[in-house]
Formats: sequence, structure tokens, C-alpha cells
Amino acid sequence: MKIIEGSIATPKGFLANGIACGLKRHKKDLALVLSTTPCTVAGAFTTNLVKAAPVLWDKKIVESDGSAFAVVVNSGNANAYTGEQGLSDARRMAECTAVSLNKEKKLLPEMGAENVLVCSTGVIGVPLPMDIVEKGIARCVKGVKRENGHDAAEAICTTDTHTKEIAVEFAIQGKKVHISGMAKGSGMIHPNMATMLSFITTDAKVEKESLQKLLGSSITETYNMVSVDGDTSTNDTVLVLANGQSQISELDETSPDWPTFADAFLYVHTFIAKEIVRDGEGASKFIEVHVSGAKDKATARTLAKSVISSSLVKAAFFGSDANWGRILCAMGYSGADFDPSQVTLSFSSSKGEIRVVDAGKPIIFDEYRAKTILLEKEIHVEANVGPGSGEATAWGCDLTYEYVRINGDYRS
Amino acid sequence: MKIIEGSIATPKGFLANGIACGLKRHKKDLALVLSTTPCTVAGAFTTNLVKAAPVLWDKKIVESDGSAFAVVVNSGNANAYTGEQGLSDARRMAECTAVSLNKEKKLLPEMGAENVLVCSTGVIGVPLPMDIVEKGIARCVKGVKRENGHDAAEAICTTDTHTKEIAVEFAIQGKKVHISGMAKGSGMIHPNMATMLSFITTDAKVEKESLQKLLGSSITETYNMVSVDGDTSTNDTVLVLANGQSQISELDETSPDWPTFADAFLYVHTFIAKEIVRDGEGASKFIEVHVSGAKDKATARTLAKSVISSSLVKAAFFGSDANWGRILCAMGYSGADFDPSQVTLSFSSSKGEIRVVDAGKPIIFDEYRAKTILLEKEIHVEANVGPGSGEATAWGCDLTYEYVRINGDYRS
Repeated sequence: MKIIEGSIATPKGFLANGIACGLKRHKKDLALVLSTTPCTVAGAFTTNLVKAAPVLWDKKIVESDGSAFAVVVNSGNANAYTGEQGLSDARRMAECTAVSLNKEKKLLPEMGAENVLVCSTGVIGVPLPMDIVEKGIARCVKGVKRENGHDAAEAICTTDTHTKEIAVEFAIQGKKVHISGMAKGSGMIHPNMATMLSFITTDAKVEKESLQKLLGSSITETYNMVSVDGDTSTNDTVLVLANGQSQISELDETSPDWPTFADAFLYVHTFIAKEIVRDGEGASKFIEVHVSGAKDKATARTLAKSVISSSLVKAAFFGSDANWGRILCAMGYSGADFDPSQVTLSFSSSKGEIRVVDAGKPIIFDEYRAKTILLEKEIHVEANVGPGSGEATAWGCDLTYEYVRINGDYRS
Repeated sequence: MKIIEGSIATPKGFLANGIACGLKRHKKDLALVLSTTPCTVAGAFTTNLVKAAPVLWDKKIVESDGSAFAVVVNSGNANAYTGEQGLSDARRMAECTAVSLNKEKKLLPEMGAENVLVCSTGVIGVPLPMDIVEKGIARCVKGVKRENGHDAAEAICTTDTHTKEIAVEFAIQGKKVHISGMAKGSGMIHPNMATMLSFITTDAKVEKESLQKLLGSSITETYNMVSVDGDTSTNDTVLVLANGQSQISELDETSPDWPTFADAFLYVHTFIAKEIVRDGEGASKFIEVHVSGAKDKATARTLAKSVISSSLVKAAFFGSDANWGRILCAMGYSGADFDPSQVTLSFSSSKGEIRVVDAGKPIIFDEYRAKTILLEKEIHVEANVGPGSGEATAWGCDLTYEYVRINGDYRS
């Protein structure tokens, strides 16, 4: 597998576009990704009780037997907590996209609203200005092409400081296969943050049930390791479109080539999850926490996630302070079963490594050296908690003044 | 019941002191509260798996049939994650206190280490400098008197910007009865914050089991409504000492005077919990969230707590932004069962009230007026979520630059 220059429209048969339709003042705010042939689709959605209208729309499509051709996404307005009007607006976005595509793209088979996925991100509780959105969709459809993938990645952003995109290529059955991803989401400092949207396209041909299952396990290892289960926004969505245009025969879990596909798929999600954390609202440091020696994987996950979710730990990293007591404390209240007196803990960065706790015993360490290590932008925390075989990695960022500024001032 | 000028040593037969023994650079760091006669004791402790040595010590005393005479508290060092040495140091603090008290205070019956409760708060993982502590205890014991209660309240503080003290007086059986409280704890912006210590003294005579039960229910309504269950520091402790010196006959749950005592007891804990929030690290606003109409009290509690625990909601209040979507979102991921389409939501302060959601419908409100209301220091959020009878109140504060500054720089 190799990482290649590319965008969401790199896999064969995908086109994209991103434009400024007028929902935001000066920035791109409407994106479209489509395939020239029907796609197998998989999706994962927020567990929040308050689900945005497009989430309800997409869930129905993902859970149906049908296929999807396109995803239309607006930023600047979440279409959440907008009642019946919101549901009708989400459907209207799909309809307009289908109508425009049918009109413009002679290559495509006719499609209906039920083939178009919809995502929205932005402010909650404000009805979408549908006249603007409808005109935007028509214009966005006209401009779709392979080269416009980066524009799509731009148009889905909100407080993101940069786009998140990746494309990989690998061989299956002697043919080139591609997986691309793009995402938005920068509010990952605390689990209950701003919306995360992630889109994956591939020209592999993949059996629907296997794809959905693979998505589920990939999410557990990636997005859920930068956030906490159940703490999700009203709009969080991950969508996968597989159009099969690489001409390989259909893959499923039992295929000999499945691990090749699954590994690349996981790689793409891992890259995106880490990119989202790196762009955490106001983040100045990237923190990787690796827990090993736990009694099982679930325990390791709980421990690692608790550490990266602690505001106190995050604030300590902002201050480049080797405050390992807060890490122990966060593991202690995580609910995970482990023996605090067996923990070995160290910090490392490009400036070296320093052990601060050894088998439950605090080490008197060189504070100056610790500071030098922790002043770096990328910090690794290694926690061995015992003789078990469970291990997991979580990613987070520090808590900064800038985070408070951004979130004290997001809506206005 | 009336609130009176007083301190932890206001109830009859209690003495106190607070001194600077040298654990902190220039501030008071050692406190002692004692009763001239044995006390019935109740206590509640952190649920963190990593429990500080003094927590383990106190739990044994509270769970035993014995009585307690005194509480010795140091700040500046948490005696947490200090292994066997820490346990032996906690015991040594109790022993020194007992020995000094036996030597100095002829009025007291002889006591042993097992009659002395111990608390510590401060940095984790550093052994206590016991020579300093032992000398401090001897000096602290010499100076105990009724007038020194405020010094004790000062000596238990860490990042607190002010002491938290209250004393109330009421009549039972024609006699004056007192309850006093003092506490430390200012890290309540996020649930997993710095240690909370709270001490209650009373000259009422109270049956042990009833007292312990009352403490449990009071905690549910107070400290647990500014924090989240299970997310506790290594040292969190609430201790109650009842010495019976008011000369009333023993109260228990079945006594006709029980409600009088229980109400005053709850009032004291509520006052302390709110004071802790008001002094939240870096807090600039006090937020009260009242949820009504939930299907039961537990649901209302979960909803209210989820709102005050959300970093996004807190940051919005810092920005005086009427960002009600974040409140809905926080209720949505709380796990509580409610119907988002039935929610009515309003903000109020001394500048008036503004409704922003009415029975599930966002209201187009006057942003200028909302800002005027939210710029105040004390904000009330009223959320009616349906026709149920469950209601609960939670208290929180905003998330500020100052919070990040304090916690990025606490250890050093």
C-alpha cells in the first residue's frame, strides 16, 4: 500500500466539487461527491438522542437495500433541532441533487432522492435557507470533476484550520485499488465537541454487510479513540461509498484479499482520526497515549481514552508539565480494572524519553529534561499497567487558551 | 434555622487551628479540628481506583464502631500514589496528633491514632516530608481554640481563591443546635478535577447509621450535582463529626426532630457545594441549571449534570453566548430518556429572562437582550423537558482562559 497525492475523487469513477453557496460569509460551504455508477454504502452515525435531520435521512438509506450515487454536504448550518421543516429540507437537498445530476450528467443512470446521502454541519436550531442551498446545489453539480476533490474537502470545514484528506493505492487481484478519505471536525479537545464528518470513497467492490462490519471495527480503533463512546454531537457521521470500478471481483470477509483491503481501510481512518486531533480546536500539541499490559483490549482502550479525555491532563500538557499524577488519576476514575501499583509510565518526544513511574514507584526525575521533552509538539505517553496482553492507543491534544476563545465565540 | 457568623469550631465543644508548617512556601498548610468529647463520625470518599493513603485510613475509622476526636489535614501534598510509605505516613499523622493532644489537652480522655481522621490535598506522588509535618502537628495542637476556625479553613485550601465556611443554628428540644462546615476545592470546571475536601461539625447527638445515610443522600443532591459520579480525584473526602454537646437526646431517622436536623444539614452541604463552584478554577460566572418535567428525579439529575459538565456549554457561557443548541446537544448525549421535541428552554439573570426554545421550537430572540442577560455573573438555565414530575438542580461555572492558565501551571 502506498499513500498517493489525491483527493476524495481519486478512486476510479468518483467526481467532486466544493463551492461557496452563501451559507457562510466568504468561505466554501457546499460539497458534492458522486460516483458515475451506483455504490455500496456503509455508514455510522451519532448516538446522541438529538439527531440532526440529515442523520435520520442517511440512516434510512444505509439501512436499506438500495445503493447511493452521491453525498451532498453543507457547512455553516447543522440542520439539527429543526423539526419537521428540517426533515423536509434534508429530503429537498437530496431531491435537488438527484434532479440536477439527472439533468446534467448523461452518463449516470437516472437516480432519485433515495440515492443521495446528505450531511450538514454548523449551528444548531436555525432552519436552512433553502433558496440559497438549492441554487448552490445546481451550481455545484455543474462543476463536478475529478480535479475538484480538494474543493469538496474545503467546503465541509467549519472551525477546522486545514483540510483533512488522504488517498492510498494498493493492488488486489493484479489490479490497482484506491481508498480515499476526507473529513471535518476539530472539536476534539473534549468528547462532546463539534460535529465530525468523515467520507470514504473506494473503487473496490465490497459486499455490503462486510463493509458495514469493517466500518464498525475501524471506528472503534480510530474515531472512538479520540473521543468517548456515547458522547457525540447531533450530526456525527461516517459514510463509505464503494463503486467497484477497479474491476476486482467482490470482496467480503472471507476473501483472501480481505486483510489487504481491511488494513488499507483502517489506515485511512486512523490517518483521518489523527488529523482531526491534530487540528483540535486551539490545540498546540498532539498527544499519543499507548496503554499496554492491560488484562484485555477493552480495558486498555478505556484507560487510554480516559487519559486523553481529562481536561487536567490536557492542561498539564499545554503547560509542558510532567504531571503524571493526573494521568494516574484519570486512569483511576476510568472504571477500568487495573492495579495502580503496577503502572510504569514514561513520556517521550523527538527530544528523548523520560520514565516518571516505575512499577508503581514514582521516580525522582530531572525536571529540566522532562520539560525539554514535553515542550515538543508531539508527545507520546507510554503506560504499561501490568502483565496482560491488552493494548490500545488513543490520540488527543492539549487544552489551550485558544480552545476557550474559539468556543466562547463560535456561534456569533 | 439561621445562618450565623462562625467557623468549623462554632458548634459546642469544637476547637480548631490552622498554621503554616512549611509544606507550602508562604501559606497555611496544616489544619486541625477537634472535639473535647468523642464524636459519632460519618464519611464519604472518592470512588477513584487510585485512593490516597489518608482515604484508606479514614475509611477504616468511619466503617468501624469507634469514635473520632479529631481531623488533621495538610495541604500542598496529597499523599497519594505513595505506596506503603504513604500509608505509614498517614498513620503517623494520626499518631502524632493523638500523642500531642493527649499531652497538651488534659480535658480530653486519652485517645489513640484510631480516633484521628487524616486528610491530605495537593500534588500526587511525592512522599510527605514527615519531619516538617510532625513538628507542625505538635505546634498546631498547642494553638487549638474556638477562635481559630477560620485559620483551619484557610489551611486546607490549594488553588482556592477564598475559604468556604458556614455555620447555622437552629432549635431542637428547646436547645440550640449548630452545624458548621468548611471545605476546599476549586477544580470543578470538569468533573475529574482537583480534590474536594469537606468537613462538617455539629453539636447535635446523632445515631451513626442515620447520619451516614443522611450524608449519602445529601451528597447526591449537592457535591454530585457539581460533579459527575465516579469522576473523582484520588483524595475526595467528606467527613462529619457529631459530638452531642448541645445536650439534646440522640436523633435518628425516626425522631420527630429529624427533618429539622436533616434540612439544616442539607442546607450546609448545598451552600458548600455552590461555594466550591463559585470558586471554580478560573471561573468568571456561576451557572445554575434547573431541569423540570423529567420522568423522574434521576433523569432530571442526569440531564442537569450533563449540561453543567459540557466544556462547550461552559465556553459558550464564558462568551455570554445564548448557544442553546449546545445545551440540547449535552442533554442528548447524556443517556437520559427524554423527548427533545418537548423541551422549553430559557436563560435568566438579574437583567431578566429570555426564552430561546418553546416546546421543541427554536424562538427567534433578541440577541442583544440575550447578551445583556448573559453578561451577568450569575446565570440561571431553566429547562422543562416534558410533563413528568422529576426535577433537579445542578451548579457549574464557565470555562475560561484563567482555567487553562491555572491548570497548565499547577504543579510547578
